[in-house]
Amino acid sequence: MGMVGGGPGAFIGSVHRMAAAMDGQIELVCGAFSGNAEKSKIAGKELYLDPLRVYGTFQEMILEEKKLPPDVRMDLVSIVTPNHVHFEPAKLALENGFHVICDKPVTYNLDEAYALRNLVHSSGLIFALTHNYTGYPMVKQARQMIRKGDLGNVRKVVTEYPQGWLSTLLEATDQKQAAWRTDPDKAGLAGAMGDIGTHAENLTEYITGLKITKVCADISTIVEGRLLDDDGNVLLRFNNGARGILYASQIATGEENNLRIKVYGELGSFEWSQMEPNTLTVRWLNKPTQLLRTGSVGLYPEAVAHTRLPAGHPEGYLEAFANIYRNVAKCIQAKLDNVEVDPIYTDFPDVEDGVRGMEFIYKVIESGKNESKWS
Amino acid sequence: MGMVGGGPGAFIGSVHRMAAAMDGQIELVCGAFSGNAEKSKIAGKELYLDPLRVYGTFQEMILEEKKLPPDVRMDLVSIVTPNHVHFEPAKLALENGFHVICDKPVTYNLDEAYALRNLVHSSGLIFALTHNYTGYPMVKQARQMIRKGDLGNVRKVVTEYPQGWLSTLLEATDQKQAAWRTDPDKAGLAGAMGDIGTHAENLTEYITGLKITKVCADISTIVEGRLLDDDGNVLLRFNNGARGILYASQIATGEENNLRIKVYGELGSFEWSQMEPNTLTVRWLNKPTQLLRTGSVGLYPEAVAHTRLPAGHPEGYLEAFANIYRNVAKCIQAKLDNVEVDPIYTDFPDVEDGVRGMEFIYKVIESGKNESKWS
Amino acid sequence: MGMVGGGPGAFIGSVHRMAAAMDGQIELVCGAFSGNAEKSKIAGKELYLDPLRVYGTFQEMILEEKKLPPDVRMDLVSIVTPNHVHFEPAKLALENGFHVICDKPVTYNLDEAYALRNLVHSSGLIFALTHNYTGYPMVKQARQMIRKGDLGNVRKVVTEYPQGWLSTLLEATDQKQAAWRTDPDKAGLAGAMGDIGTHAENLTEYITGLKITKVCADISTIVEGRLLDDDGNVLLRFNNGARGILYASQIATGEENNLRIKVYGELGSFEWSQMEPNTLTVRWLNKPTQLLRTGSVGLYPEAVAHTRLPAGHPEGYLEAFANIYRNVAKCIQAKLDNVEVDPIYTDFPDVEDGVRGMEFIYKVIESGKNESKWS
Amino acid sequence: MGMVGGGPGAFIGSVHRMAAAMDGQIELVCGAFSGNAEKSKIAGKELYLDPLRVYGTFQEMILEEKKLPPDVRMDLVSIVTPNHVHFEPAKLALENGFHVICDKPVTYNLDEAYALRNLVHSSGLIFALTHNYTGYPMVKQARQMIRKGDLGNVRKVVTEYPQGWLSTLLEATDQKQAAWRTDPDKAGLAGAMGDIGTHAENLTEYITGLKITKVCADISTIVEGRLLDDDGNVLLRFNNGARGILYASQIATGEENNLRIKVYGELGSFEWSQMEPNTLTVRWLNKPTQLLRTGSVGLYPEAVAHTRLPAGHPEGYLEAFANIYRNVAKCIQAKLDNVEVDPIYTDFPDVEDGVRGMEFIYKVIESGKNESKWS
Repeated sequence: MGMVGGGPGAFIGSVHRMAAAMDGQIELVCGAFSGNAEKSKIAGKELYLDPLRVYGTFQEMILEEKKLPPDVRMDLVSIVTPNHVHFEPAKLALENGFHVICDKPVTYNLDEAYALRNLVHSSGLIFALTHNYTGYPMVKQARQMIRKGDLGNVRKVVTEYPQGWLSTLLEATDQKQAAWRTDPDKAGLAGAMGDIGTHAENLTEYITGLKITKVCADISTIVEGRLLDDDGNVLLRFNNGARGILYASQIATGEENNLRIKVYGELGSFEWSQMEPNTLTVRWLNKPTQLLRTGSVGLYPEAVAHTRLPAGHPEGYLEAFANIYRNVAKCIQAKLDNVEVDPIYTDFPDVEDGVRGMEFIYKVIESGKNESKWS
Repeated sequence: MGMVGGGPGAFIGSVHRMAAAMDGQIELVCGAFSGNAEKSKIAGKELYLDPLRVYGTFQEMILEEKKLPPDVRMDLVSIVTPNHVHFEPAKLALENGFHVICDKPVTYNLDEAYALRNLVHSSGLIFALTHNYTGYPMVKQARQMIRKGDLGNVRKVVTEYPQGWLSTLLEATDQKQAAWRTDPDKAGLAGAMGDIGTHAENLTEYITGLKITKVCADISTIVEGRLLDDDGNVLLRFNNGARGILYASQIATGEENNLRIKVYGELGSFEWSQMEPNTLTVRWLNKPTQLLRTGSVGLYPEAVAHTRLPAGHPEGYLEAFANIYRNVAKCIQAKLDNVEVDPIYTDFPDVEDGVRGMEFIYKVIESGKNESKWS
Repeated sequence: MGMVGGGPGAFIGSVHRMAAAMDGQIELVCGAFSGNAEKSKIAGKELYLDPLRVYGTFQEMILEEKKLPPDVRMDLVSIVTPNHVHFEPAKLALENGFHVICDKPVTYNLDEAYALRNLVHSSGLIFALTHNYTGYPMVKQARQMIRKGDLGNVRKVVTEYPQGWLSTLLEATDQKQAAWRTDPDKAGLAGAMGDIGTHAENLTEYITGLKITKVCADISTIVEGRLLDDDGNVLLRFNNGARGILYASQIATGEENNLRIKVYGELGSFEWSQMEPNTLTVRWLNKPTQLLRTGSVGLYPEAVAHTRLPAGHPEGYLEAFANIYRNVAKCIQAKLDNVEVDPIYTDFPDVEDGVRGMEFIYKVIESGKNESKWS
Repeated sequence: MGMVGGGPGAFIGSVHRMAAAMDGQIELVCGAFSGNAEKSKIAGKELYLDPLRVYGTFQEMILEEKKLPPDVRMDLVSIVTPNHVHFEPAKLALENGFHVICDKPVTYNLDEAYALRNLVHSSGLIFALTHNYTGYPMVKQARQMIRKGDLGNVRKVVTEYPQGWLSTLLEATDQKQAAWRTDPDKAGLAGAMGDIGTHAENLTEYITGLKITKVCADISTIVEGRLLDDDGNVLLRFNNGARGILYASQIATGEENNLRIKVYGELGSFEWSQMEPNTLTVRWLNKPTQLLRTGSVGLYPEAVAHTRLPAGHPEGYLEAFANIYRNVAKCIQAKLDNVEVDPIYTDFPDVEDGVRGMEFIYKVIESGKNESKWS
């Protein structure tokens, strides 16, 4: 694997590296960790890479790696840069035959997303989008329960994603994470709705199997001086007629990363919380509430296949993230071996999810400006 | 105290009686427990009342009690009937000099609410509305924290009230509680939004001290054959510019009575859940999260004054309800003694809250039909 | 009902009064609230009692009340004094034909307990001991589950009762509650083990239906200057061979009233916590964990019969306490009506439980001094 | 790193590998994964190892690796075999100049533990024992709080470690994990007390900084046909006079891996639960309860240095485990670079902890047979 971005000061780069390393299926062999060649070198050295394979630009990395023998060169490019540097490296990687794992949202804007979708389809390569919350075992379980009809027809969905870290004008300080996420030139059309709203949207559609068809959004910039939205409240309508609420906020003072979802069906409902991810609370119409637990009994194979430890040994954010990398590795290996991969492992977010996410961003931002209710 | 309603099969009548009895300040002395005189008699007997003071109608009760000597007759009428029988007994009680405690929503329609407000104001009598959740010690604490500015300016509020008991067409069975609550002739303009949406609205305004100025509502009747709404999702705007979400549902399968509120301010936030009411979780901008607990340290006098037990001895729904009765008793006693009552005890929902609730119902139902976003 | 004790400054007296009043089945008609006649009068006035029935001593109360006509005089004496004033009023009440509700532990010493047992048996009167935690609906449910064999043979029990309020030498201040509980002349042989250890012991035997047959105790006085134990750790053996742990502490700094019990059987286990009393967490050998909830589905009639509200409306300490009073009232009424009372209502702690508690105190205090392991 | 054990069917081997790989500091280069050379080969192939460095025995691995050039050969041996195969490979590794990471308990018996201690001391090499629970950030925080005196003098400690997976005679089936852990020839003197009792003991001493000086144990074999203990309840006395309870059980039906510790000091107390490891609940004498959270504010540098993610992104069992590997890697690197390593990273369990654990096993098993109270 080669990495684009993830140099000094980055948060998500090291997350991707830990996730990729955990299962011993993927080796980081090269990288273009920074637009600054010097910084890239330093990062590469800290990562014990061959200095010859630490590149100054992603273009250089992709083109130079391509020249290496197939059994030496990287198979896969991991893109962990800010949003405005997703499309170009993804495009170049695909055009040169490399599989891609890309951080979310998929691109800087919707046109890029559509273009990327075409590229992925025509390339026949693997493209995975790290909506990492879909990698949790209990999220897999939840998705299967809906698919199997355990809750009956879904009637109502409530998805919350409050964070508090942008409660002040943090971008006015030296904080790199805050800086690019609140900068329209790097983040794109949306702030909070792009950064975490798309996670909420993706999780909602992933678990329920439904499509959001209409939104009615109240999008706000609460902190004075900020250039993009930092809070959004959205009413949802789904393709089966279900109703929903989705909100994402980065000014929810004191909140850590409190992504939660509640899905109400005719026969029962469940609730999952990212901060206590190993429990899925299932409430039934006329039976006692159950706690389904990672690694324990009563789970679908999809949940079991994404679990590393016996019940009671908590698995966290990195393990969920690693499930996406592990599944991509399995898919690449299957391609190399020219065999079919069990669909249980192909169920990671892809470019289609990326397009859905970008469409969601455009829709809620538009709705936020609209006087009419539904967009 | 005399009671209107609360005969056999009623739920809320016995709640009111337990709440009234708990502190030994209020004695049930008479009642018109049912429109059916026979049923009223049976109820009165079970309550050990003097048969002469068990009446067939509220009119009879009010007029006959008035004839009794002042030290014998009831001081207070408690109205625990369905919504369509709130206004008339309240009006007659006030016109005859009796204080009133009335269940919510205050009346059947908005015109009655306005008329009742005028009556209360001109009578000089006490009128309390049992938005009982405001009686919890930790709700008192929350309200004071906002008043004192502990969280700074409020920016966002999320209030949830999911119940699951009407997930099926329960009113088609013999269930009395379901029957009147889903019947437009008894409940009024709204179902879930009237029954529990108004609790959510009242709690939101009570705790934050803010006023909801605009709503954008998605109001639904999910269960086929039902005549009133059973689910509503609402975006809120407040008079200080804060944003909010409020939802109430009676088709949230498996949910018990999961009223929750989260208030986000500049300096911190808090979260309170009715089902675990003795904890207020407070999250700060740059300090560890705190758990404030009923009966424990670090609380405002308003919380302390509504607590009966040392910390760790859980106080519940009935105690919160009883706080309203106890406070009304204190106010009546103060009137009798011609003294001022400490404002700590006068802070219960009144006819003004009742009018706000009815206006909220009308607004969200109207918004639910609107194509334009804000009502 | 007449009350002995519970005057100004008392905590448990007002608890008993609220519990007795809640269900409208018991009326407080007289009392000897303090050894100080003046204080007793003040208390009686605050409670709206007829001044003629506010007595200076319990002897006076019992003897004077006996002179009143049967339909006027009290039926029942409630004893809420410190331990050294349990036996005498109980004895006199029973000897004069009055039923008794008494706070725990039952007496000042074991001889009194045995004597009281004889008196109760020969009197044919009702004697209830307020081990109030047995009144919780989920405790009733737990007891029934064991009785019905739902967990199979019980193998292990862990009962914890940490409090923190005596972490400092509080008795050196003016705190009345601390003063008598740490005074050997008033509390008896034990401090923490008598005050709350007996609650833990009673709850353990009540829920499991087992008898503690052997104890091995480490009993300590942690706070310097204190005269009785404030911390005790005990290994248990039960009559069916099960093993157990019980600890009670009043120096567990920061703890409120954290009584918890875990019972492990062959087929499953459950856990109950007094501070969140409306949930019984049941863990099964090969099935998902269940949450049984007060007022919800899947409960035995014994739990249902001790529940006042629909699920999700939290019931607390006072409601559990009131269940004992309500059941005593039902038993008295049945005696008056000369009918059988449903055994569901007779299942409150009695003088036998009182004797067990006193024996437990003597055993653990003795064991604490022993060099040999089991007592 | 070379690994001893961890072949097909092993649980803890893959845990060690994931933990070692996560931070990119340690590379698995060789292994003797099974006593069966064929199985070892298969394992090595699945792990993408050079077949030449997949060995049939640990002796072969150690001796062959030693022949390789220093920059090629392994630095470190990771021993993940059952207890009876800890001492020999550790001895041989140390004698040949390799650092060792060893699973717990440290050896099969106490004599081996003492011998190993001598070997480690004379070798000057690093020996780490994977009492992995000490690697959690909130455990580091807890330890520092005690060291800094935040809770004052410790008075009472309660450590619980219930599991339910051996509630039936699982070893009679084909379950490898159960088989060796209940076999005296492989596990040693103790079953549950060795397997998880030592974790509880180590965590207790690690966090409190105290030494257990006396034990009084009730050790049982509950499941018929089992050869070693599966349940133990222990009273503790500490070197500062504090009291304690420790229990470990593998027949606690329905429990997953519920390691918990509560430490009570003069000024406050805290509680930590392995199954929700990112929260440390701190209760104070006269201040509201606080929740300290991994990655959030108010933490000591020791906690921060063992955290990988921002608050709210749950870190779990593998991350805690990986902290031990990461710290060992840092210590090895420092030795290679001939620099001092920050003591923040040297604070992992070592051979001394291993000896303490073996002494604990011997003491509780002896106490379990004793008629006298304290051993």
